[in-house]
Amino acid sequence: MILILKPNIDVEASEYKQLVEHLSTLQNIQLRVHRVQGVEQSLTEFHLIGNTGALALEDMKNLPGVEHAVRVSEEYRILGRHKVDSRANYFDYQGLRFGQDTLHVFAGLCAVDTPENVEEMMKTLRDNGQQCTRMGAYKPRTSPYSFQGHGKACLPYVFELAGKYGIKVIAMEVTHESHVDEINEALDATGHPTGVMLQIGTRNTQNFELLKIVGRQQKFPVLLKRGFGITLDESLHAAEYLASGGNQRVIFGLRGMKTNIGDPHRNMVDFAHVPVVKRLTRMPVCIDPSHSVGLRSRGPEGILDLLHMTAQGIIAGANMILVDFHPAPEKALVDGPQALLLKELPHFLEDVQITREAYLKRQALAQHISIGN
Amino acid sequence: MILILKPNIDVEASEYKQLVEHLSTLQNIQLRVHRVQGVEQSLTEFHLIGNTGALALEDMKNLPGVEHAVRVSEEYRILGRHKVDSRANYFDYQGLRFGQDTLHVFAGLCAVDTPENVEEMMKTLRDNGQQCTRMGAYKPRTSPYSFQGHGKACLPYVFELAGKYGIKVIAMEVTHESHVDEINEALDATGHPTGVMLQIGTRNTQNFELLKIVGRQQKFPVLLKRGFGITLDESLHAAEYLASGGNQRVIFGLRGMKTNIGDPHRNMVDFAHVPVVKRLTRMPVCIDPSHSVGLRSRGPEGILDLLHMTAQGIIAGANMILVDFHPAPEKALVDGPQALLLKELPHFLEDVQITREAYLKRQALAQHISIGN
Amino acid sequence: MILILKPNIDVEASEYKQLVEHLSTLQNIQLRVHRVQGVEQSLTEFHLIGNTGALALEDMKNLPGVEHAVRVSEEYRILGRHKVDSRANYFDYQGLRFGQDTLHVFAGLCAVDTPENVEEMMKTLRDNGQQCTRMGAYKPRTSPYSFQGHGKACLPYVFELAGKYGIKVIAMEVTHESHVDEINEALDATGHPTGVMLQIGTRNTQNFELLKIVGRQQKFPVLLKRGFGITLDESLHAAEYLASGGNQRVIFGLRGMKTNIGDPHRNMVDFAHVPVVKRLTRMPVCIDPSHSVGLRSRGPEGILDLLHMTAQGIIAGANMILVDFHPAPEKALVDGPQALLLKELPHFLEDVQITREAYLKRQALAQHISIGN
Amino acid sequence: MILILKPNIDVEASEYKQLVEHLSTLQNIQLRVHRVQGVEQSLTEFHLIGNTGALALEDMKNLPGVEHAVRVSEEYRILGRHKVDSRANYFDYQGLRFGQDTLHVFAGLCAVDTPENVEEMMKTLRDNGQQCTRMGAYKPRTSPYSFQGHGKACLPYVFELAGKYGIKVIAMEVTHESHVDEINEALDATGHPTGVMLQIGTRNTQNFELLKIVGRQQKFPVLLKRGFGITLDESLHAAEYLASGGNQRVIFGLRGMKTNIGDPHRNMVDFAHVPVVKRLTRMPVCIDPSHSVGLRSRGPEGILDLLHMTAQGIIAGANMILVDFHPAPEKALVDGPQALLLKELPHFLEDVQITREAYLKRQALAQHISIGN
Repeated sequence: MILILKPNIDVEASEYKQLVEHLSTLQNIQLRVHRVQGVEQSLTEFHLIGNTGALALEDMKNLPGVEHAVRVSEEYRILGRHKVDSRANYFDYQGLRFGQDTLHVFAGLCAVDTPENVEEMMKTLRDNGQQCTRMGAYKPRTSPYSFQGHGKACLPYVFELAGKYGIKVIAMEVTHESHVDEINEALDATGHPTGVMLQIGTRNTQNFELLKIVGRQQKFPVLLKRGFGITLDESLHAAEYLASGGNQRVIFGLRGMKTNIGDPHRNMVDFAHVPVVKRLTRMPVCIDPSHSVGLRSRGPEGILDLLHMTAQGIIAGANMILVDFHPAPEKALVDGPQALLLKELPHFLEDVQITREAYLKRQALAQHISIGN
Repeated sequence: MILILKPNIDVEASEYKQLVEHLSTLQNIQLRVHRVQGVEQSLTEFHLIGNTGALALEDMKNLPGVEHAVRVSEEYRILGRHKVDSRANYFDYQGLRFGQDTLHVFAGLCAVDTPENVEEMMKTLRDNGQQCTRMGAYKPRTSPYSFQGHGKACLPYVFELAGKYGIKVIAMEVTHESHVDEINEALDATGHPTGVMLQIGTRNTQNFELLKIVGRQQKFPVLLKRGFGITLDESLHAAEYLASGGNQRVIFGLRGMKTNIGDPHRNMVDFAHVPVVKRLTRMPVCIDPSHSVGLRSRGPEGILDLLHMTAQGIIAGANMILVDFHPAPEKALVDGPQALLLKELPHFLEDVQITREAYLKRQALAQHISIGN
Repeated sequence: MILILKPNIDVEASEYKQLVEHLSTLQNIQLRVHRVQGVEQSLTEFHLIGNTGALALEDMKNLPGVEHAVRVSEEYRILGRHKVDSRANYFDYQGLRFGQDTLHVFAGLCAVDTPENVEEMMKTLRDNGQQCTRMGAYKPRTSPYSFQGHGKACLPYVFELAGKYGIKVIAMEVTHESHVDEINEALDATGHPTGVMLQIGTRNTQNFELLKIVGRQQKFPVLLKRGFGITLDESLHAAEYLASGGNQRVIFGLRGMKTNIGDPHRNMVDFAHVPVVKRLTRMPVCIDPSHSVGLRSRGPEGILDLLHMTAQGIIAGANMILVDFHPAPEKALVDGPQALLLKELPHFLEDVQITREAYLKRQALAQHISIGN
Repeated sequence: MILILKPNIDVEASEYKQLVEHLSTLQNIQLRVHRVQGVEQSLTEFHLIGNTGALALEDMKNLPGVEHAVRVSEEYRILGRHKVDSRANYFDYQGLRFGQDTLHVFAGLCAVDTPENVEEMMKTLRDNGQQCTRMGAYKPRTSPYSFQGHGKACLPYVFELAGKYGIKVIAMEVTHESHVDEINEALDATGHPTGVMLQIGTRNTQNFELLKIVGRQQKFPVLLKRGFGITLDESLHAAEYLASGGNQRVIFGLRGMKTNIGDPHRNMVDFAHVPVVKRLTRMPVCIDPSHSVGLRSRGPEGILDLLHMTAQGIIAGANMILVDFHPAPEKALVDGPQALLLKELPHFLEDVQITREAYLKRQALAQHISIGN
């Protein structure tokens, strides 16, 4: 059971103390305290773990300092949607809202290679009105003999260039806890010109130790990619490792499943799960069409499969798009064949816009009909 | 190599005879003749099989009676798209055009149960401006002890009711060659009040004997469903069995892949392959959201997954939608849980319309940009 | 519920008539009669379908003419193993016993090509003490433009050569009901020099119409291959289509699953299901290492993967082995790369023998320990 | 290219210095030095990375101090088998040899729960002549709310009890680098009563950071489990991360693939890959029948599927068996349903012995025939 306390409740307030005291008298019930700092207010949640079946929801709602009480199932305890669950399905970071009703494009470099390419990318994003990007500094590669990313060496210029061009959030994969420290240090050293969304990739979806550590920090929101060979359920449980550590600012990313039935695409596109994740949890959902499709083929009407897949995600309500661009894909060190050209960005964004408007119309239609019934 | 002859060429014309005579002198080359009867004209194709590498395309184009010559690869020889391939990507049936640029909804009963339900379905379709439907008379079921469909007994009333309500085409699965005869007989007996699109289901995608026989008749177009456990390539090869038999009026249907990574959906939705099939072949592409999704869950904005998946197919250019409705899903003999209610049809059609318009805008945008480049 | 009647019961006997009369009085119970002709006796089974929950097993056992009564679940009603189920797990054909305790090797040609190769194969088998073989006359091929087998044209010489070299049973795939007629006719025409086990391949596992027709004949036993993209449960249900038609002489074949996680093997070897099928049903289990492995690679000790996979099947209790040999694999029209050489047959058989002996020792050990407990 | 130097070569020897000096003159060639300390001798390998195509193998063999030179492909550079590759396919640890020709059983507790159960397990192993075991202290669990293992707290008593009962090697999963330190400290604190084989589980197969760190230490050998949703090739590349870090004492573990086509088994058993891994690499191969099968069902002859799968691995040459036992499976905290009872250990070992003998006979037969040819 989760008790959501009144906003901005003071831990020194008498009602807070009374509540804690009362809960400590409950037998076989453990208490975990989670605090979520939002832009306008701080929220405190009390998670009651153990024999909560014996507690009446109504009684708990009436305790001092309690605003809501939510009975949670064992499934996705924190991030899940539960019956009568009024908890937020969004969070704010760097002045931007990331939620189940918003849409952000994170176009950028799969792997940082040169400062020149980073700058050209950032400038193009700024010129096209973008505030987010993706930049890979730490690259997990199948073979130990492949390029592994420039690591912390590239962070200072990546962050500075982001700041120069007004990019507010960079999605960046980390594969080891030390990378979070390195990112922190580089941000400090460069004066925090931008923000970072930590990305956990598909190979580490069940690297629970990394999830625990990343979940314990609350500075950076986290984008958790689905594991490419496990069930959706197992990946959603992995997200709970982040949340149970304390960090509820989690976005869930779909990036295709590893099976040859998706051929000729690199992976089996799984964006059908966009509405499923939004229904089962409170997480915004990101799609990664670049890694799902993995090639630059196009349909007979001249539209790239990659744009079609992006549209499939958006028309079903996706909230974030991670997409690879590169000034010269043929020279990219990682995944060049799937990268879009910088000059294709305006078309990409316009295509996204058309589909997003259609989604919003579909949403309005459904609400209209629902009210009519 | 395929030679497309001049439209309406007469087999008694001298140029036709000259052509045949010339081709008979070519060594190690076999000739297969395919005739396609369209609404306005009949097309004759000469398929040259064997050592065609030695023939010059230019020479063949200049033969008497030849309009085009297409060099085909071994892959999807007839239905494939080949370089410099001007063959049609559509066909006409019952006054309707089915092509890679059109969109038709086939809403209907997964399995025919009672005349009353068939009539209610047909009437609702008519009232909503529909001219196509799906009606299952022959049902392949996993267990021999499950209901297997009413078979030929229900055909007369199904066809008559279709005629009564102005339904022009019924998609109907056949699982044995005798079913085609039965359909033919029932249409004859009832005075051809409607048309039938033969459907080959996922369990028979590689039932090559059935494909050969169905491919040899040209009265009915064929909807071939993808095999749910084989690669896309293998399913496209199966379509060639139909075409090599003589029937090129083939629509290719996506209906989800059989793997638990699609959970909680019944199958792994594979509509990402819509543009792939359109690029590799000249076939229109059908999607079957009902069997892909298999349940009535909805996203948090209140839209059914089934509508989301339909939208995903359409936004990427799908040409046909096969979708289960039922007057009383809880009483349906087959696949009730996935059926939509009749009263949901207007919403479904309006939702389809919104997305189709967005697709057309996306198409126009791509052409505009392509011209600009 | 299944009533197994006394062996060789006469349909004119009074106890038989009394039984039928009594059963006809039961409400909501349908009766299906199955007769199984064995070497020494004929068995009659009465299958009671409908509301059998209301019948007491003890009462039914005491009815006139009844030897056993078995309560069956819905799952695999006829071929399944049920509690207190004393029905046979074997059948006899051509003087050979095929059961869950026997082992037969069916080495032979994947596809019949020339009479010379057939004769060389048959002679080699005879010289190595074999009485069974596999010979493909009807070949389902992914592409319609590939060699489809010699069909009925080759049957006469195949059967005659089998007779000449003392081969008693040929496993032969059929893909259409007409093939059964053609086989029948060719056997009649050649004076029945051998027997045939009809094989239903993996592409037709859920071709229910073919299963129904093949199940209605009892002349030939049937080898049903597992569907390569469906669950084991679904394939076992398919076997019930054969049995519910009347033919219980069914062997179930494992041949690998279609998924790239089996790479570098052609398919994912699934012989772990040997004991599962034997536990769930009364069918003997066949393994097809040739199609599972699909290549001639060998382990560092010099043993072909194909022999290793065969050993894996046998050590877990497999009852039949379907394996491709060819006098000149590089000239084989179908699946040459996986065929063994004729001169490798003695090694193959000796290797099989070593493993079979180990299996029997394992079986004896388990029984010894079971008795000790 | 890999140069294997003369055994026990001294880095101060002149031939060593000459060799290093010569190599430093090669253009575009980097040198990595790997040292492997065996029981009797130390081996030094020089890995030349870069443009080695220009080097003649014969020239390199003749350099001072060089015993062998092996040209390696990009694939599995260190652990792979390459043409003319005389490097060892075994290593020694704690007085035991682990190689492609040996077989060791690691029976034990999936998860350590109580000292009493650990002692009962150890004692039973000793009484049955075993010197190895498995003991899980760190358990990666799908849900953060499940029991996560006792961690370092249990190490002292686990190690002491191992020493007490003569157990020389414990296979123990680690999921974070700190676990290696904790194991080291506990071994130091308890006086090194036993040895540890570090196990990397299927969820961390592509946790490259963990692999790099574990690969940099050479104190403990490593058992790397295959990733359950990736190709074999990708998992073998992961093993190279260990080797490229410096640790070549790696055993590769098969534990079943995650797909529902393996139902009713928990995973799709993949022991068909035993000979494949032995052919492609120099690693010994471990099988984990407990996690592959995941249940205690048995075939009709009374043998557990788990024993059948073990036999399938061994008959094809498996070198190590990881198998769960528990004094009271119904009380086990993790994976109880798949654990064997302690009293079943003698049967298990005898069953293993029967099959191992059959494998050795098969091996001898293959060598005999190979010599005869």
